[in-house]
Amino acid sequence: MEGNDSVTVVGSIGIDDIETPRGKHESVLGGSATHFACAARFFSPVTVVGCVGEDMPPDLLKALEHNGIDLSGVKELPGNTFRWGGKYNEDMSVADTYKLELGVMADFQPEIPESRKDCRYVFLANAAPAVQIKMLECASSDALVVCDTIRHWIESERDAFEEVTKRSSGLILNDEEIRLLTGKTGLVSGAESVLDLGPDFVVVKKGEHGAVLVCAEGAFPVPAFPVRDVMDPTGAGDSFAGGFMGTLCRMGTADTVSLRKAVDAGIVISSINVEGIGPEATLGAKQEDIRTRLARFHELRGIP
Amino acid sequence: MEGNDSVTVVGSIGIDDIETPRGKHESVLGGSATHFACAARFFSPVTVVGCVGEDMPPDLLKALEHNGIDLSGVKELPGNTFRWGGKYNEDMSVADTYKLELGVMADFQPEIPESRKDCRYVFLANAAPAVQIKMLECASSDALVVCDTIRHWIESERDAFEEVTKRSSGLILNDEEIRLLTGKTGLVSGAESVLDLGPDFVVVKKGEHGAVLVCAEGAFPVPAFPVRDVMDPTGAGDSFAGGFMGTLCRMGTADTVSLRKAVDAGIVISSINVEGIGPEATLGAKQEDIRTRLARFHELRGIP
Repeated sequence: MEGNDSVTVVGSIGIDDIETPRGKHESVLGGSATHFACAARFFSPVTVVGCVGEDMPPDLLKALEHNGIDLSGVKELPGNTFRWGGKYNEDMSVADTYKLELGVMADFQPEIPESRKDCRYVFLANAAPAVQIKMLECASSDALVVCDTIRHWIESERDAFEEVTKRSSGLILNDEEIRLLTGKTGLVSGAESVLDLGPDFVVVKKGEHGAVLVCAEGAFPVPAFPVRDVMDPTGAGDSFAGGFMGTLCRMGTADTVSLRKAVDAGIVISSINVEGIGPEATLGAKQEDIRTRLARFHELRGIP
Repeated sequence: MEGNDSVTVVGSIGIDDIETPRGKHESVLGGSATHFACAARFFSPVTVVGCVGEDMPPDLLKALEHNGIDLSGVKELPGNTFRWGGKYNEDMSVADTYKLELGVMADFQPEIPESRKDCRYVFLANAAPAVQIKMLECASSDALVVCDTIRHWIESERDAFEEVTKRSSGLILNDEEIRLLTGKTGLVSGAESVLDLGPDFVVVKKGEHGAVLVCAEGAFPVPAFPVRDVMDPTGAGDSFAGGFMGTLCRMGTADTVSLRKAVDAGIVISSINVEGIGPEATLGAKQEDIRTRLARFHELRGIP
């Protein structure tokens, strides 16, 4: 690992109810920051900035701490923890959200702990663009800051989200978000238009179909790792981001070679994430599992 | 090239009307065998087995012959040529068929010309399973026969299509077809269930997302080549099949290494196909274009 760098993620910590065609699971640890951190920890130290309510069972958070995740940026606030309930369709490509209770997340103003102010790798998970802009403003000037979002913010707060785009080092977006942001239907030309707004790279996440890294040097497509049995896709995108950012931190650079390695790591860790309910598979995995799967992923793609 | 092997394709030759968000194109040469042959010709000699009606403009077919495609298996029959009209949606992922006139294809009983009876590489494009079974019966016993199909045949003639599956060396299917055939939603476990029915390999075609080769040695995912401007997706799947079969013929084997090279070639040639209307881009391409793009495709994926 290069120096003492670590990754900071600003995002949600929640309690999920997850229904798939195979079964129903209640009160599962969830949230973008949770899934991110469970993935990033294999590659670099990771600090979570977020909040929980008084109802968060201590056991759930202990599972994170026991796996080396720094929760010094997590505040317990009066009120309830963010709760999400989703039901996946037959092929698990789409979740129907039947419960969304923001709880303490509704008015949360995240703050990066003083000890992590100089952190050089920051991931801003989906949040209102105003919150992301505030975080971008207080991040270290030499930090690599990568942002995620959802369709809603591009539609309802376009100007603010364009500001986020302009100030970010990189964005992780899906094809629909790129189309909304740029008006272009082609994935490559759309992602190139996003680059024109400011960031150095865009990672187009395509779920079960993999991802494409688009930067000045080209558009680099990476397939998904073929997973035999998807148990629960919840958190796949955030796990991807965790593996991606953790790898950039470990490499200590964000040149094209590192970005490509980071995408591979993101895909591998997200393929592990979807094999368990919530974060159980990424929490249960060993370093050796990640190495083995990464090697197999390269082998399956003909990469030496 | 190994020996005098060539590829034979049994499929349709048609006249298409194609509407995309960018424009309307009438009386374009189309059909599965056409797109297949225009792609396969870069890799091996190719013979088309099919039929046209009296209304087929001679110029359209001459474009194929001028590019070295053997049309000795194409019959002109009394009646009209197969005609298809389709309108693509905004992102060109789906075509709405507004015209489908089978014409001489309705009762066509294809026959492989005597001179090609010993052909060792045969592609049976989408057709009624009964027609495919007849072709499978008269193909050379040592031939590698690969079949395509559409959802309709799996739904309406399941038993006959299972017979096709059993007798084929390989199948090219999409995820929906695999789900219908096996009842499994997972791409890998579904494709493995197809293998249990008999064939040596299944290529799962995923359109703009690439393909996955599934055989005894594993599931090998390949992303699509990132195309900046898709002009017309018509024939992408058949072009893929043409590049795939042409490459197997050129390699002279169908071991896993050859199958993987064949998938790469199929993806590269189909990425060229979608950059023009109908088969114009594959007809207009040079060997050098294919080599250059294949090299770029490897470079973008980190393959030496």
